[in-house]
Amino acid sequence: MMEIDIRERKIGLRFLDCGKAEIWLWAPYVIAVSVLLPDQDLKLPMLKQEFGYWFLQTDQIRETYEYGFEISHSDETTQNQSEIKQLRRADPASVFQKNGVNGYSTALNLKSFNWTDQNRKGMCLADFVIYELHTGTFTPNGDFASIEQKLDYLVDLGITAIEIMPVSQFPGGRNWGYDGVYPFAVQNTYGGPMSLQHLVNACHEKGLAVILDVVYNHMGPEGNYFNDFGPYFTNKYQTPWGNAINFDDADCDPVRHYFIENVLMWFRDFHIDALRLDAVHAIKDFSTKHILAEIKQYVAQLSAWSKRNHYLIVELDLNDNKYINPLAEKGYGMDAQWIDEFHHALRVTAGQPQQGYYSDFNGIEDLAKSFHDAYVYDGQYSPHRKKKFGIKATENEGEQFVVFSQNHDQVGNRMLGERTSKLVSFEMLKLMAAAVICSPFLPLIFMGEEYGETNPFQFFISHSDKDLVEAVRKGRKAEFAAFHDDQNIPDPQSEETFNRAKLNWDNLKKEKHQLLYTYYKSIIKLRKSLPALSKLNRNHLNVDVFKDQNCLILNRWEEKQKIICLMNFSRQQQILCVT
Amino acid sequence: MMEIDIRERKIGLRFLDCGKAEIWLWAPYVIAVSVLLPDQDLKLPMLKQEFGYWFLQTDQIRETYEYGFEISHSDETTQNQSEIKQLRRADPASVFQKNGVNGYSTALNLKSFNWTDQNRKGMCLADFVIYELHTGTFTPNGDFASIEQKLDYLVDLGITAIEIMPVSQFPGGRNWGYDGVYPFAVQNTYGGPMSLQHLVNACHEKGLAVILDVVYNHMGPEGNYFNDFGPYFTNKYQTPWGNAINFDDADCDPVRHYFIENVLMWFRDFHIDALRLDAVHAIKDFSTKHILAEIKQYVAQLSAWSKRNHYLIVELDLNDNKYINPLAEKGYGMDAQWIDEFHHALRVTAGQPQQGYYSDFNGIEDLAKSFHDAYVYDGQYSPHRKKKFGIKATENEGEQFVVFSQNHDQVGNRMLGERTSKLVSFEMLKLMAAAVICSPFLPLIFMGEEYGETNPFQFFISHSDKDLVEAVRKGRKAEFAAFHDDQNIPDPQSEETFNRAKLNWDNLKKEKHQLLYTYYKSIIKLRKSLPALSKLNRNHLNVDVFKDQNCLILNRWEEKQKIICLMNFSRQQQILCVT
Repeated sequence: MMEIDIRERKIGLRFLDCGKAEIWLWAPYVIAVSVLLPDQDLKLPMLKQEFGYWFLQTDQIRETYEYGFEISHSDETTQNQSEIKQLRRADPASVFQKNGVNGYSTALNLKSFNWTDQNRKGMCLADFVIYELHTGTFTPNGDFASIEQKLDYLVDLGITAIEIMPVSQFPGGRNWGYDGVYPFAVQNTYGGPMSLQHLVNACHEKGLAVILDVVYNHMGPEGNYFNDFGPYFTNKYQTPWGNAINFDDADCDPVRHYFIENVLMWFRDFHIDALRLDAVHAIKDFSTKHILAEIKQYVAQLSAWSKRNHYLIVELDLNDNKYINPLAEKGYGMDAQWIDEFHHALRVTAGQPQQGYYSDFNGIEDLAKSFHDAYVYDGQYSPHRKKKFGIKATENEGEQFVVFSQNHDQVGNRMLGERTSKLVSFEMLKLMAAAVICSPFLPLIFMGEEYGETNPFQFFISHSDKDLVEAVRKGRKAEFAAFHDDQNIPDPQSEETFNRAKLNWDNLKKEKHQLLYTYYKSIIKLRKSLPALSKLNRNHLNVDVFKDQNCLILNRWEEKQKIICLMNFSRQQQILCVT
Repeated sequence: MMEIDIRERKIGLRFLDCGKAEIWLWAPYVIAVSVLLPDQDLKLPMLKQEFGYWFLQTDQIRETYEYGFEISHSDETTQNQSEIKQLRRADPASVFQKNGVNGYSTALNLKSFNWTDQNRKGMCLADFVIYELHTGTFTPNGDFASIEQKLDYLVDLGITAIEIMPVSQFPGGRNWGYDGVYPFAVQNTYGGPMSLQHLVNACHEKGLAVILDVVYNHMGPEGNYFNDFGPYFTNKYQTPWGNAINFDDADCDPVRHYFIENVLMWFRDFHIDALRLDAVHAIKDFSTKHILAEIKQYVAQLSAWSKRNHYLIVELDLNDNKYINPLAEKGYGMDAQWIDEFHHALRVTAGQPQQGYYSDFNGIEDLAKSFHDAYVYDGQYSPHRKKKFGIKATENEGEQFVVFSQNHDQVGNRMLGERTSKLVSFEMLKLMAAAVICSPFLPLIFMGEEYGETNPFQFFISHSDKDLVEAVRKGRKAEFAAFHDDQNIPDPQSEETFNRAKLNWDNLKKEKHQLLYTYYKSIIKLRKSLPALSKLNRNHLNVDVFKDQNCLILNRWEEKQKIICLMNFSRQQQILCVT
């Protein structure tokens, strides 16, 4: 089996110190592979290695050259004859697709960036105050360089970590990022890999950590050529996106290798502080060692070598603390997980109707439970899931849970993509912010939330395949069929939908928005300055619920300091009897 | 959620002490259910309960009455109209199908049997010497009563536990048992439930334990009406038999309940000593608590209440000791597992070609590894599986592994179903027996092996659906297509195939067969009488391999006793240098 060296990426193309390029490709069932250099009109045959890998070391490739592969398959035809079929493909481990998903790959040296953050060890997880942003809509220009212009603003707000929605190369220029098909390539329209390195470096200079959202549960539909190379997928398991990624079927080792290398690349070559792994419940792996546990092992190795903190945070729709328990306790060793149930309980408490997945939540009592136990469902029957759900997570630390009052999904998966600012009163916005920021968990703010952005954040794509576009449109309509309001479903392919999602920074000049911004800033400052709030000790906490008044009192303390948060979710004054 | 009471079965029909019958049925999406009593011309409506259950308590049902259900579905038709569709079905938790899979169920009181084994606590697992048998072909009559006639023979041989291939009601009279469709019903052609109770009681009187093979990974194709009742299956996972049983999707709790009740019934009402759970790697369950772990919890409760040993042994094609580690160590708590790799290594060592799944095994070194480590693959790359496979099982006890030189699968899944007696020399048969019986694991003998039965054990069925029969025939042909020998593939539906599989007890009268029998008897006696063999201490063992001579020396010891087993798998005399 190919050995993983945490210090060097051994998949795709990298430049050696001597200037030569080394290329590794996994293509177990092809009969020949050559590296194509279209601008040099060269074709360099690769050498077959063990376990289906192909290899080439050459001095004919220089930085910025375009390259690709010519792969030859033997096609069985009638009468035991076979024909050679040749395909031209970009590198599935390409780090840059200058001309998008259907173009050639660009040879880049990720090591040539001049980092100025060398002495940074990284922040403690407990200190993360997270700001989730989508590169394309966070700024008018929609690229990494423009994010840098906003860093002072974020620092002023009190943010300590930005979380960037996925940047792996996706088709077109408008996409949430979950349709990526080159996990190693940084989106060309955002500025590509060097520009991301520049952004991360700038963040570190300002004391900000960077979390990157990565997708290891599926690949996008357009520009997805993985099946031409090897069995990256298996039909053993079905996911919402079709066949699952092959983490445990025949030939799974090189697929696992591919994703482990991907994790290592972001931490090592991009100085990313934490990865946010998308929907890991959709990663199907019955192996003796779960892929997440294996990823953790390599990340721990890397951390020991790099002397930096590298965190793994998972989006997880299972109340199963096996994922966040340490490897030594037979957990998967993830550092933290998103906890949507806090959000659902908070939204219902704030008055949103108990529809869809909100139907499992009853409001203030569930919110209190989540403050206390993180998971609302820890073994009870869930009517929405139609089964008993969850387990207690009593022993897990507060910093192992990420909470929010909104995020890209909770906003964008509504038919009209309304932010909370369009759904609840101004006063309720402040209360929801306090609930999140005063929680004993890691708070996450969705871009624009801090000043009450009113623009929607709807689902958008820019595929070039017309049938696919139609399929996505139909899918959205089917999802919202219950609303009987086909006319008003935003068209995901339309540029308008994308433009509407952009933050309107002019709002900040208006008094009400400025007021909310100042409120967020103050409460974040409070969280950071008071040990009773900043120490995420789940044992130094209790919650008193006043169900009829829709109020709760969250008590948190640390040494002699005691904080009492009174939260009144009713729309009127309440008198609470406190004993 | 319906609570499980380990003392009483709360699914299907049971008689209360007062003589009334109580019936529970799970049918969440039907609009009405009645109990049908065809001979009494009665129809008794059931009452709807929580979570999709239906209930009836009545004094109108007596023992031996036939009964079934009339279930009413609402069929959506055009223009929001709906039609009521009615189906007549037997009880999915029936304990007896007198007239087979398509007949009515029979009301029986499983408590009316007069047990004479009340003081039996049960054997220690380490003392199991297992004899696997198929009820239909073990004796000329092919029923439970005839097995009783052979118990003295088995006791004389030294057997301590019989393992009965599945007896849950299957279509027709000829079947290995893995096509069962009424997991609670005991096959009518074998004699039904009372006859099985009688057999178990007789075994216990003679000091024999009884292991029952049960199938929780799929249901058979014919007579399978589960979908009329509820979502027993899910398309989230694919198994070799189609959609997986629903252990973790919506509505899984009642399905889990159903199988837990099944486990409890065998132990409590049939006094079964151990269950052998078929192919548990095909049970797909991503729940927080795996169904096997939940089964273990209830069995532990039952054991505390019944004051008897109840063992769970799994067939497992994963070298993953998570399954057999204790619940307290986050394992699934199974007591033991089959270890096919010992068999494969032994067969290759004995000279069988390295084809198919034998291709992963190199002979004597792998056999030595299995003696020592149980798992041959404990992390290495497996060429046959095309992935790294397994984990070390260093801490597990010897009695947690069941080994064999043949079993129903390893014989019957060959195209011609040849037993080892037809494949290797007479002397090699003896050596293979010694390898199994002198191992630090639990030995299993397949019926007839002990005297070198020469009849084949081929795959047989007796379905009534012609298309299904044709599909099975085609499946067998496809499985053995590589042999290019279509003509000679035995017809699974033919009665001849079944008859050929019956043991020919006349063989025992022949000298050679008698000799082998005596050999087995002697070596089993040795195992039981010498602590160095009977104590399954994996640390008191080492193996010396002589690769070029195809020999090994297995050393085992206990206190001052030391046993040296010299095994020469070559076909000639060898001189070994022992240091």
